Amino acid sequence: MNKILIANRGEIAVRIIRACTELGIDSVSIYSEADADSLHRKIATESYCVGPKLSKDSYLDMISIITIAKKTGCDAIHPGYGFLAENSDFAEMCEASNLIFIGPMHETISLMGVKDVAKDTMKKAGVPTVPGSDGVVASIEDAKKIAADIGYPVIIKASYGGGGKGIRVARTEEELVQNYKMTEQEAESAFGNKSLYIEKYIENFRHIEIQVIGDYHGNVIHLGERDCTVQRRMQKLVEEAPSPILSEEKRVEMGETAVRAAKSIDYIGAGTIEFIYDLNDDQFYFMEMNTRIQVEHPVTELITGIDLVKMQIKVARREAIPYKQEDIEIKGHAIEFRINAENPYKNFMPSAGKITDFIVPGGYGVRMDTACYAGYRIPPYYDSMIAKLITHADTREEAIMTAQRALGEFIIGGIDTTIPFHSNLLKNEAFRTNDYNTNFLQEHDVMK
Amino acid sequence: MNKILIANRGEIAVRIIRACTELGIDSVSIYSEADADSLHRKIATESYCVGPKLSKDSYLDMISIITIAKKTGCDAIHPGYGFLAENSDFAEMCEASNLIFIGPMHETISLMGVKDVAKDTMKKAGVPTVPGSDGVVASIEDAKKIAADIGYPVIIKASYGGGGKGIRVARTEEELVQNYKMTEQEAESAFGNKSLYIEKYIENFRHIEIQVIGDYHGNVIHLGERDCTVQRRMQKLVEEAPSPILSEEKRVEMGETAVRAAKSIDYIGAGTIEFIYDLNDDQFYFMEMNTRIQVEHPVTELITGIDLVKMQIKVARREAIPYKQEDIEIKGHAIEFRINAENPYKNFMPSAGKITDFIVPGGYGVRMDTACYAGYRIPPYYDSMIAKLITHADTREEAIMTAQRALGEFIIGGIDTTIPFHSNLLKNEAFRTNDYNTNFLQEHDVMK
Repeated sequence: MNKILIANRGEIAVRIIRACTELGIDSVSIYSEADADSLHRKIATESYCVGPKLSKDSYLDMISIITIAKKTGCDAIHPGYGFLAENSDFAEMCEASNLIFIGPMHETISLMGVKDVAKDTMKKAGVPTVPGSDGVVASIEDAKKIAADIGYPVIIKASYGGGGKGIRVARTEEELVQNYKMTEQEAESAFGNKSLYIEKYIENFRHIEIQVIGDYHGNVIHLGERDCTVQRRMQKLVEEAPSPILSEEKRVEMGETAVRAAKSIDYIGAGTIEFIYDLNDDQFYFMEMNTRIQVEHPVTELITGIDLVKMQIKVARREAIPYKQEDIEIKGHAIEFRINAENPYKNFMPSAGKITDFIVPGGYGVRMDTACYAGYRIPPYYDSMIAKLITHADTREEAIMTAQRALGEFIIGGIDTTIPFHSNLLKNEAFRTNDYNTNFLQEHDVMK
Repeated sequence: MNKILIANRGEIAVRIIRACTELGIDSVSIYSEADADSLHRKIATESYCVGPKLSKDSYLDMISIITIAKKTGCDAIHPGYGFLAENSDFAEMCEASNLIFIGPMHETISLMGVKDVAKDTMKKAGVPTVPGSDGVVASIEDAKKIAADIGYPVIIKASYGGGGKGIRVARTEEELVQNYKMTEQEAESAFGNKSLYIEKYIENFRHIEIQVIGDYHGNVIHLGERDCTVQRRMQKLVEEAPSPILSEEKRVEMGETAVRAAKSIDYIGAGTIEFIYDLNDDQFYFMEMNTRIQVEHPVTELITGIDLVKMQIKVARREAIPYKQEDIEIKGHAIEFRINAENPYKNFMPSAGKITDFIVPGGYGVRMDTACYAGYRIPPYYDSMIAKLITHADTREEAIMTAQRALGEFIIGGIDTTIPFHSNLLKNEAFRTNDYNTNFLQEHDVMK
């Protein structure tokens, strides 16, 4: 593998280019017309404009991307996260064009992409799943019966949904009828498929996910868990590893379950099995599988000492994973803070524009992943995340102390960011003592 | 300990402020009139102008510094490195003013500050020393006798010398007579004392130093070695840990010797014992002891997982070192690159001025310690080092790969820096294969 096209932008494109460079592999970056000044363009071996500002005309334009990859003599494409990372058609097109798609087989992406099919597959592999409909619900009448059976509240989910869309809770039969129709309409217009399924709605839970990695030689291992319970509208804001609420026994059980799940689908590459961790009874249930690198992968890298993006590339070039499960050692505690160009004082209103000052924290225990710099203008067309600050220390308490000082010296001028949100969060008693679930931000106004 | 004054500037002041903040200790920074825009001023809890631009009127003004410390209610002073860090009078003044000097006892600083006394002390403690005069040489006639006895070449050193000054080599008796007089004159004018001593000159050696730390409870441990062989005019440019040329046997022997040396002088705090490692016969000899934190301390932090500056503070507040020697585990390999504002294409000519662009590398395995930012104007009055890039990976080869990519994406506009020097160095075969000694830069023109 001599040359990889990175089909992404921003910090994850920069992250992947770095891995390529360190492995002695040339990188080809693509950029939209709005991203001409972006860092992922500057640091790659070569870079090409892929189209106009809108993602659908650039970062989602599969044919243009594959054409650039072929013309520049790439052997492989790394999709990052978002955009085409979980598009099985794109993975299949890569294969058909004789390009290695750095990710799992396209059949695996497909299988895990349809939520009820994924759930059913996991159930068959012996992974605990939330009680609910056996696959797609046929009608409202059917939905009523299932809900009565498993008990309210229930959650209605679009089979093809994702990113927090196509999901509604119903606490009564009346709400079920109403929300069923609304979700069906939304699913049809947003995902082109109105299939829905129903599950028991677990309210008091933590989001805990297990990082797995598999290779072409039948090896699958896990690299411990990440706790991503601090979310706003189902978008993760802070992620940490290890989870501060997990017992050693449950940690082992969840890890083994995730490996079994990945093995059952012959999983290849880096993937994440997300679980609902019910705080009421300490049970965990399969939520979904992400068949790609995650935004929050750095926390796992810091506690395991394993470079996940390099590992993805090595697996894609058919190397065997050089570790056995028992070689994986968890060292210390890491926390990631997503710095978004949003104003936390104004309900997280997006804030694009020119960055006038950009003084990043550094020093011991601090990792910065960003594509920004002083003078860079943030285009308003893409995701609002502009940097990831990750700290690593011996204990959670020390990682928080390092994060507090790092956030305190992080200066971003010219735009609003979520830095003040994170600084306030770290002072919150519930956060510090781990007394919270995914409703944390509904229950605590940290900006007050 | 609630408040610490940092009697320094630049990256080391920033480094110390970070440690204070993470320990929940307030920091007071001092700045000269030329440093009003400096980062160490901005990130401290409080900051005060200590005097005009020249160091002697500001960062070396002991009375003003102690006055500020007392007026602001500080409990302690951290001197960093350089400036007053090895000034025993200052340490004594701190004690007399009821301020904790974060460093060893002033008597220890004195003892190790006079080179021939330090050597003699170490010799008595059973530390190997380079054959030479027993203490100060009485006269030229005496010098001739000693040189004839130990054999040429010899090195003439000023007892009170330091920083590469007051040192001359003599290869013949004629050179000895000539250089003896010149060094004597230089010593008198530069250090106010013309005492000289003579040693066998070892030409084919590596600079290897051992980090030690001692506490008030009688504990002394070492944290492994650093190899600082890449030097220019006796100034270190690149430092790495562990040393790639040391056998495990020698590593243990040097570590134990350093601990014995530190114990013999009841050493308290962080210190470094520098050794000449003779490549001709694999013997090591005491060179000098630095009774302070070193510029290159981050490589030790990365391979041991121990924050040395926090440890200095903890020891100063009378905590016991929480590790035993057998707890210290070396993980991977770290390399530090000193980025100086100098033009490596023009014989390292200093380059002050305004930094127009400053895009720092980040991501996995990269640590940045700097006080610079885009828009910052480097004053011409102080040390030329403006940033330290440190990489950490499983192996030396990987740490070099990470460094190559990090140096490649490090953009500093508006001034000249030594980044191109480091990039070239990493491509040098002798560097990569470890086939070099302290004469590396005389023998290899990496800028060609």
